[in-house]
Amino acid sequence: MDKLIQALKDTIMANGILQVETSARHVHLSQADLEQLFGKGHTLTPKRALSQPGQYLSEEKVTVVGPKGEKKVSVLGPVRSRTQVELSRSDCMSLGMSAPVRLSGELENSGAVVLKGPNGVVALSEGAIVAKAHIHMTPDMAEKLCLKDRQQVKLEVITDRPLVLQEVIVRVDEASSCKVHIDTDESNAAGCEDFTLGRIIK
Amino acid sequence: MDKLIQALKDTIMANGILQVETSARHVHLSQADLEQLFGKGHTLTPKRALSQPGQYLSEEKVTVVGPKGEKKVSVLGPVRSRTQVELSRSDCMSLGMSAPVRLSGELENSGAVVLKGPNGVVALSEGAIVAKAHIHMTPDMAEKLCLKDRQQVKLEVITDRPLVLQEVIVRVDEASSCKVHIDTDESNAAGCEDFTLGRIIK
Repeated sequence: MDKLIQALKDTIMANGILQVETSARHVHLSQADLEQLFGKGHTLTPKRALSQPGQYLSEEKVTVVGPKGEKKVSVLGPVRSRTQVELSRSDCMSLGMSAPVRLSGELENSGAVVLKGPNGVVALSEGAIVAKAHIHMTPDMAEKLCLKDRQQVKLEVITDRPLVLQEVIVRVDEASSCKVHIDTDESNAAGCEDFTLGRIIK
Repeated sequence: MDKLIQALKDTIMANGILQVETSARHVHLSQADLEQLFGKGHTLTPKRALSQPGQYLSEEKVTVVGPKGEKKVSVLGPVRSRTQVELSRSDCMSLGMSAPVRLSGELENSGAVVLKGPNGVVALSEGAIVAKAHIHMTPDMAEKLCLKDRQQVKLEVITDRPLVLQEVIVRVDEASSCKVHIDTDESNAAGCEDFTLGRIIK
């Protein structure tokens, strides 16, 4: 049975088929901004592990305050060196904000954003992005699929409302769980369900 | 100059390139439901013509009432034989409703929906759909592109966040203006701007 399952997994992987996960709006906080929002010395309380090793959804929530509205967003942990707010374009429109489509961590000239917590407010001149669709991948899997870190591929989302995302970025990391991450606009446009598969097209 | 513009238009069309229009949530009402919502004998007040000949945005708005929330929607005219509510999947999620992906007019077993107007409420057992992406096309253009009514094509949306919609339906109609119609989820996932082009891939 173990051999059969391994053979199935190998076949699926060799065809570039991966699970597609939808990331709803969320924020990564720096320790300084976490304390500004929640109080001095505050630390995040993990609620649930996420698919990428070490990453978790915390119990904490903050409010993104835009010119046209407000939205509660989850705080993901652990803390990072810089605060990053990931919104969908739909979120941006209803908040009256703008944010560029970017890979995580690429915050130069990203969108201005105001966050509100129980202890205070943080106003950032940059930090808001719409996350560019990406694929987390181990070096092992990248080698098997002949893909490199930062390579751009197409990804067919396999659903009843299928579409092909034309510019999906491969991110190779030893610590990765092999998953595709798309945002809620892409997920809704593709009609994704809880468990959805995608296929890499080079 | 006229000849140059015509030559350009011919080249663009011969390559299956069309304008992509985004349809936000809206409703088409039957005369009976219009009167139930706005009062006996009420007629729609046109506000602005839409790209499809004879279709218009009206001054009237109604509220879609879902288990989780409410949303104001525009009423398009003229009235139709049956009431049809077109929502995005994002709209459905925030309203707590469900609606199948369907072509306009295909309302059998579509979603239940409650509408509220200034004069009353209409509760429908079916009528809510998520509009399937489609291309309005004249018979002349369909012939030039060798396409038939109801044919399924792929459509590349040409933007900075490009994607290919895999199942887009051609709708041939003498009265059509040649345009692609997608919903707000597809539009946001593709990063569409006010003027966006798409390319048919057979």
